Amino acid sequence: MTAFGVWAPGRRRVDLVLDDGRRPMEGRPDGWWEVTVDDAGPGTRYRFSLDDGPPRPDPRSRWQPDGVDGPSAVDDPAGAEWSDTAWHGRPLASSVLYELHVGTFSPEGTFDGVVEHLDHLVELGVDAIELLPVAEFAGRRGWGYDGVLLWAPHHAYGGPAGLRRLVDAAHRRGLAVVLDVVYNHLGPAGNHLGEFGPYFTDRYQTPWGQAVNFDGEDSDEVRRFVIDNACMWLEDYHLDGLRLDAVHAIVDESALHLLEEMAGAVERLSGRLGRTLWLIAESDRNDPRLVAPVAAGGYGLDATWSDDFHHALHAALTGERSGYYADFGTLAQLARAYRHVYVYGRHRSPSRRRHHGRPVSESTPGTRFLGYLQNHDQIGNRAVGERSAALLSPGRVRVGAALVLLAPFVPMLFMGEEWGASTPWQYFTDHEAELGRAVSEGRRREFAAFGWSPDEVPDPQDPATRDRAVLRWDEADREPHASLLAWHRALIALRRRVPDLGGGDRGAVSVDFDEAEQWLSIQRGATRIVVNLAARAQRVPVGPGQPSLLLASAPAALSAGGGVMLPPESVAVLRER
Amino acid sequence: MTAFGVWAPGRRRVDLVLDDGRRPMEGRPDGWWEVTVDDAGPGTRYRFSLDDGPPRPDPRSRWQPDGVDGPSAVDDPAGAEWSDTAWHGRPLASSVLYELHVGTFSPEGTFDGVVEHLDHLVELGVDAIELLPVAEFAGRRGWGYDGVLLWAPHHAYGGPAGLRRLVDAAHRRGLAVVLDVVYNHLGPAGNHLGEFGPYFTDRYQTPWGQAVNFDGEDSDEVRRFVIDNACMWLEDYHLDGLRLDAVHAIVDESALHLLEEMAGAVERLSGRLGRTLWLIAESDRNDPRLVAPVAAGGYGLDATWSDDFHHALHAALTGERSGYYADFGTLAQLARAYRHVYVYGRHRSPSRRRHHGRPVSESTPGTRFLGYLQNHDQIGNRAVGERSAALLSPGRVRVGAALVLLAPFVPMLFMGEEWGASTPWQYFTDHEAELGRAVSEGRRREFAAFGWSPDEVPDPQDPATRDRAVLRWDEADREPHASLLAWHRALIALRRRVPDLGGGDRGAVSVDFDEAEQWLSIQRGATRIVVNLAARAQRVPVGPGQPSLLLASAPAALSAGGGVMLPPESVAVLRER
Repeated sequence: MTAFGVWAPGRRRVDLVLDDGRRPMEGRPDGWWEVTVDDAGPGTRYRFSLDDGPPRPDPRSRWQPDGVDGPSAVDDPAGAEWSDTAWHGRPLASSVLYELHVGTFSPEGTFDGVVEHLDHLVELGVDAIELLPVAEFAGRRGWGYDGVLLWAPHHAYGGPAGLRRLVDAAHRRGLAVVLDVVYNHLGPAGNHLGEFGPYFTDRYQTPWGQAVNFDGEDSDEVRRFVIDNACMWLEDYHLDGLRLDAVHAIVDESALHLLEEMAGAVERLSGRLGRTLWLIAESDRNDPRLVAPVAAGGYGLDATWSDDFHHALHAALTGERSGYYADFGTLAQLARAYRHVYVYGRHRSPSRRRHHGRPVSESTPGTRFLGYLQNHDQIGNRAVGERSAALLSPGRVRVGAALVLLAPFVPMLFMGEEWGASTPWQYFTDHEAELGRAVSEGRRREFAAFGWSPDEVPDPQDPATRDRAVLRWDEADREPHASLLAWHRALIALRRRVPDLGGGDRGAVSVDFDEAEQWLSIQRGATRIVVNLAARAQRVPVGPGQPSLLLASAPAALSAGGGVMLPPESVAVLRER
Repeated sequence: MTAFGVWAPGRRRVDLVLDDGRRPMEGRPDGWWEVTVDDAGPGTRYRFSLDDGPPRPDPRSRWQPDGVDGPSAVDDPAGAEWSDTAWHGRPLASSVLYELHVGTFSPEGTFDGVVEHLDHLVELGVDAIELLPVAEFAGRRGWGYDGVLLWAPHHAYGGPAGLRRLVDAAHRRGLAVVLDVVYNHLGPAGNHLGEFGPYFTDRYQTPWGQAVNFDGEDSDEVRRFVIDNACMWLEDYHLDGLRLDAVHAIVDESALHLLEEMAGAVERLSGRLGRTLWLIAESDRNDPRLVAPVAAGGYGLDATWSDDFHHALHAALTGERSGYYADFGTLAQLARAYRHVYVYGRHRSPSRRRHHGRPVSESTPGTRFLGYLQNHDQIGNRAVGERSAALLSPGRVRVGAALVLLAPFVPMLFMGEEWGASTPWQYFTDHEAELGRAVSEGRRREFAAFGWSPDEVPDPQDPATRDRAVLRWDEADREPHASLLAWHRALIALRRRVPDLGGGDRGAVSVDFDEAEQWLSIQRGATRIVVNLAARAQRVPVGPGQPSLLLASAPAALSAGGGVMLPPESVAVLRER
């Protein structure tokens, strides 16, 4: 016996469409329609027909065995077997995250394919994996940000059962699992949500189409749809946290911002489940309100991505200055990111043509912010999707890794970064012909503005574009990859071993640097990270103490006259005795 | 000698257009254009021509002697004579406000016409007048919310010199002056701002047209335009505060909301001038963040209008339930407004079809909120603009006055309310023919939806509509007006005399009521306001103390068995001994 329900206010008639016919549903005054079917159960396929219109999948479908255009199927989360009953989650502030895309992490491109490589991640030393969105999107290939059935793990990845197996396997290994969820827009194909109710509004615009109606008439149910969805992932799939995509495009002008309401709901869920749960925002707003406590007028999220640190680091290491990297490039900015988190904390941003952000208070721990040298966007939004290892000398790659993994932030790696994967990470999609052509054309046009000729830009629709992104696991054991992997392992182990490095105390951070000589000396308590970015060896001052060397990416030597002698493009970690 | 300047980024050429010809202006890299003219001074008329286009008034014009389509004129604020040097402002929390419209407060419809009646206001006992917007709008008649030259006091009201005379005269009498300013949109006629720069954005919509660009590219100068404007009124016209119109339509998704930035600028100005300055928001958001301190994540404004109290009071007194009054009508809601400020503090609002607002913390003083029985909107947005005195029995009018003037909020009256003016306050405009027809037609259509026939709805464009709104000052001394005026004077005097009533301590407020019997008993410290709204006399309980009668609107009698016997539709104020 299964109870079906759907919110479709303003409809005169809603039918449940099963393989063997239609059942009229009963309308409630609050816009919900309900029917209970005796002989339906796990696996039963169904759709809804609104006012005798074409059958549509359930907006809250838990399973789309045939994709976005097929019927929904009844899932049975309560019947799932779990072996992680002892798991209580872990603190985000002491974790290292690892972002991965299910469809390209393994050749299989499935949840089970991810399981195959979890031991590698345990050996690497990370604490949590963060999955790019898995909610059902059109086609079999894609990054996941075009999801339209937000409650269903993608059928090509292995559906609900596959995701449960992955989370269970991760927890057995002590790994937490975070899922990227997209609440700021829906994908362009297979989105029928607007037929069911006022999920969208024209009062605001987003870069990706219609804004979601979080503050207009009948928005209570839209908010509930999203907050229930967040809680569903965390509860039914035992997930440890969510990464909320592009929250700056969630426009909610009501007195209680959706994110604050969500944080409250997740906090209550955490109490009920007895597990630590994380909410991590992605935002380009540079707004500390996201992670400030509710009592201080904040939204009470656990952490937010910090692109300024990425941009400052990327621009300093690569010398790139196009697009938004025009706002970055100096060591002073990198130092500011280390000290103050935001480089633009109410400073004028040339690329934005306005002042941007606001300062982060000194008392806000650095671990409220994620720090990374690479992520899916920063690689994949390049024309040809080169990773840092393809852009930088081996020395600079090691410097970048150290500056991320020893930062006062929560470090995050992107899959394959740890061994300098040779595979690019390019934008790919699997849309039907017409939309697909538009996407391919749009991509070519976008990069034509930056001087790329059409045949240089990979076609998102070409299956080979996805295939090129699949990690080559055999690389990891071979040079030059193996030694880079060892470097990442050593850095993570060091972060874990040295309390100065593991925490997010920004008060204990001070940074010296010389823009002309291209060195940087970062003090974190009694520990110091010393970087030489110059093409020549040089002595970098390390303060008055008598330090010892903890780790170095190249033969560094303590100098008798004070300081440390660093080879070109290298980093060393010292500890004052 | 006068230095002219204007911000017009992206223009190739800007000319200053004087009566005797054009002077090319010099462009700066920041988009400002400048020229200094030796023989220009106070009174010199000028315009700007952009890329040889038609001459336009100065966006920061201080004076438009011939209206929005005429030239700007140089004003001389530094040369003005003031007699209010000893004035240091007054605290908002202990003030009673009085909203007035310059164009209809006196038959003259000028700033000087207001001066004629200031002594009446002093005798009434109010502390501050709040002027409906005076910034130059198209035509000679209007409420003022269609302003397009935001720096120029309307020429028909008497221009800059007239406003200075009014403020000086008010301050000489101990009256503060607040000005209503509109930063959420510009009027539909005479608005050339978009030709000068990116003042507007299509990313958001407002109910009144294009949203102002407070967070997009080049928004720094747009924010500066508005914040400089706020400071200009306060500094150059010696104003004591601003009422910020409809701040819910100021969409600013950046990390530092315009209102918070403005509050900071006004706080610094207050320090520099050594005067108390008020920022008062009008908002339909029910969001305590507006008045929360910056340290608590608020915007740091001094106060906000509180429509929920108005609606609860109006609906309880009139029995009206149409439009947004559908959300109100019970004594329980009126009691909730007294206790919790917002009736909708995260409750579901039927008329909005969603949850609305958020709770006000107990520690937030009631004097962060304005309370009123009437205001320009609540009267004038009715089809025929009836005031409360035309809708309610004399007894209920007195009850309403008491519930406003003895509330834990900052009370505000609307001009003429104190004597129950017989003049309606209807919507009126003075647009050119085509726009005028559209406005008249729109008004008729709006109220057709509520069952009004076209000839019942006053024509906004008809000069008689404005004329009908002009206060008849001879009424004030005649019955039944004179005794109502005396009642208002007595209530204000009582508020001032009894410390329990003057403050905004909401912790000391408790309310008992009986919905069926239609009585209300409000305790404020040791003082109690007892209301009988029933059509029959009844005994209302007043708690265990031994009270004495301070004031009553009709012969009330302390009852030997406890409580107070109140005539129908009356109110009494008691004090425990």
